[in-house]
Amino acid sequence: MRPDVFFAAPGADHLVPAMLEAGLAEGAVVFRKFPDGESYVRLLDDVAGRRVVFVSCLNDPDQHLMSVLLAAGAARANGAREVGLAIPYLPYMRQDIAFQAGEAVSAVHFARILGQFADWIVTVDPHLHRFGALDEVFGSVPARRLTAVPAIADWISSEFSQPLIIGPDSESEQWVQGISERTGAPGLVLNKTRTGDRSVQIDLPELGRFGAFQPVIVDDIVSTGTTMARLVSGLVAKGFRPPVCCCVHALFVEGAYGRLMEAGALQVVSCDTVPHVSNKISVGKLLAEGVQACLGR
Amino acid sequence: MRPDVFFAAPGADHLVPAMLEAGLAEGAVVFRKFPDGESYVRLLDDVAGRRVVFVSCLNDPDQHLMSVLLAAGAARANGAREVGLAIPYLPYMRQDIAFQAGEAVSAVHFARILGQFADWIVTVDPHLHRFGALDEVFGSVPARRLTAVPAIADWISSEFSQPLIIGPDSESEQWVQGISERTGAPGLVLNKTRTGDRSVQIDLPELGRFGAFQPVIVDDIVSTGTTMARLVSGLVAKGFRPPVCCCVHALFVEGAYGRLMEAGALQVVSCDTVPHVSNKISVGKLLAEGVQACLGR
Repeated sequence: MRPDVFFAAPGADHLVPAMLEAGLAEGAVVFRKFPDGESYVRLLDDVAGRRVVFVSCLNDPDQHLMSVLLAAGAARANGAREVGLAIPYLPYMRQDIAFQAGEAVSAVHFARILGQFADWIVTVDPHLHRFGALDEVFGSVPARRLTAVPAIADWISSEFSQPLIIGPDSESEQWVQGISERTGAPGLVLNKTRTGDRSVQIDLPELGRFGAFQPVIVDDIVSTGTTMARLVSGLVAKGFRPPVCCCVHALFVEGAYGRLMEAGALQVVSCDTVPHVSNKISVGKLLAEGVQACLGR
Repeated sequence: MRPDVFFAAPGADHLVPAMLEAGLAEGAVVFRKFPDGESYVRLLDDVAGRRVVFVSCLNDPDQHLMSVLLAAGAARANGAREVGLAIPYLPYMRQDIAFQAGEAVSAVHFARILGQFADWIVTVDPHLHRFGALDEVFGSVPARRLTAVPAIADWISSEFSQPLIIGPDSESEQWVQGISERTGAPGLVLNKTRTGDRSVQIDLPELGRFGAFQPVIVDDIVSTGTTMARLVSGLVAKGFRPPVCCCVHALFVEGAYGRLMEAGALQVVSCDTVPHVSNKISVGKLLAEGVQACLGR
């Protein structure tokens, strides 16, 4: 039996060491774009008869999706016995319902596209709100959901003696609850009303007994950071200590990082599911273990 | 039976009048991108029980593909009885073989992705070189191939009394031959050697009896324009009249238009399968007729 092999897409280099430590062999691959915007992929290692895993961060998904699909397609065409996708950040999961008539339910369509090219998928903290389980989105393709909650909780515990875990809205509840349980710290889930892509209103808590606490705002995804920045400045105005901002997936578009710091954040911290300067909490080991589990090793 | 309806993606607005003239009803649709790069689609007209056509120019394909797939997926989810794609420029067709071991044969994978969301596809002059017919690429999904050759030939005949049709390489032969036949003008197909994305060598013809002829260089796709610009300056250096540059699909990336004019072109002309300032030859009527044929009207 030929050994399993993984290939890392551009932007996933930081996850390679953990995969190697887990005993997987790394394959060489060329990813590039033609001048007209078409993606190009070439697998430099022979995959015939092997189980093959592609590791790819799918932030800015439209730009990165084709290269992963082409790679998976090339593996299959070249005789791979099994093709798995390790996608630490799974995009398009927030549009998981038609909020208005006629809207594309992107989560389902995106999962269908990925699933057409993969035997299994493993991801970290997918934004599942209306779907109960990842398999509901992916249908017949086995999809494994990992969570960075323990890693985030352990980081918070190591840094702060009296943290207060705060989630900006009901969709952050599962992360607030998990982190609160593991750290033993109190957790607050606030109410948010969205009035546009970049405008929100949040019901702020009162300072009360929390004056000595270190607020740690947690959420799964930070995109423009508008919501979290609003919460940071709101908490500071209410007399809270400058909050720490913490997320799993640091999309951080349109100046999100600066927006959070300028709003008065003490620190901005993220997992490395999406490469960003704020990455402090590694999911590499978690992902490698998830891949191993999918491979049944 | 509810009437058929078409939706035009951004960049395909210029094809709407021909579709309307052909008697198809236009539907309203919202296409946009979220700040993090995810595509969003909402069909504003009810499609339940209707046959639905999406018209989309897929140049810069990675940026535009998801919106077409989401639109088609939304149509299906909302009860459309049939979903067709009118794609005047079909990208990814040039990588139709593994030129080197391990390369993704993008043409096949791209067709598979489109085919997953469509009942049929109609396109104009796909770059089919190694595949004999579009159905070989698309498998079980019916794919109709239209050609702009008559429209291009008629434009050339209306502008020049003594044209000389020149193709830069063997892959342009089918266009040179078709245009030469319909115009009655002589045609030359040259030999090209590619040494990189942006570097080529072309075997130039001698002026001989062609001093009084108007050279018209024709090709299906112009991307960076490097090949065509090399040919323009080469022909001028050989004593030919300043050539006209003519193509079906004007991708025109990295300053291609300026490159051609600076190389000494008399004029740069293209079909409107991809929107560009050089568009002079419309494929709207051709495409609308192709859509009608696919709908069996």
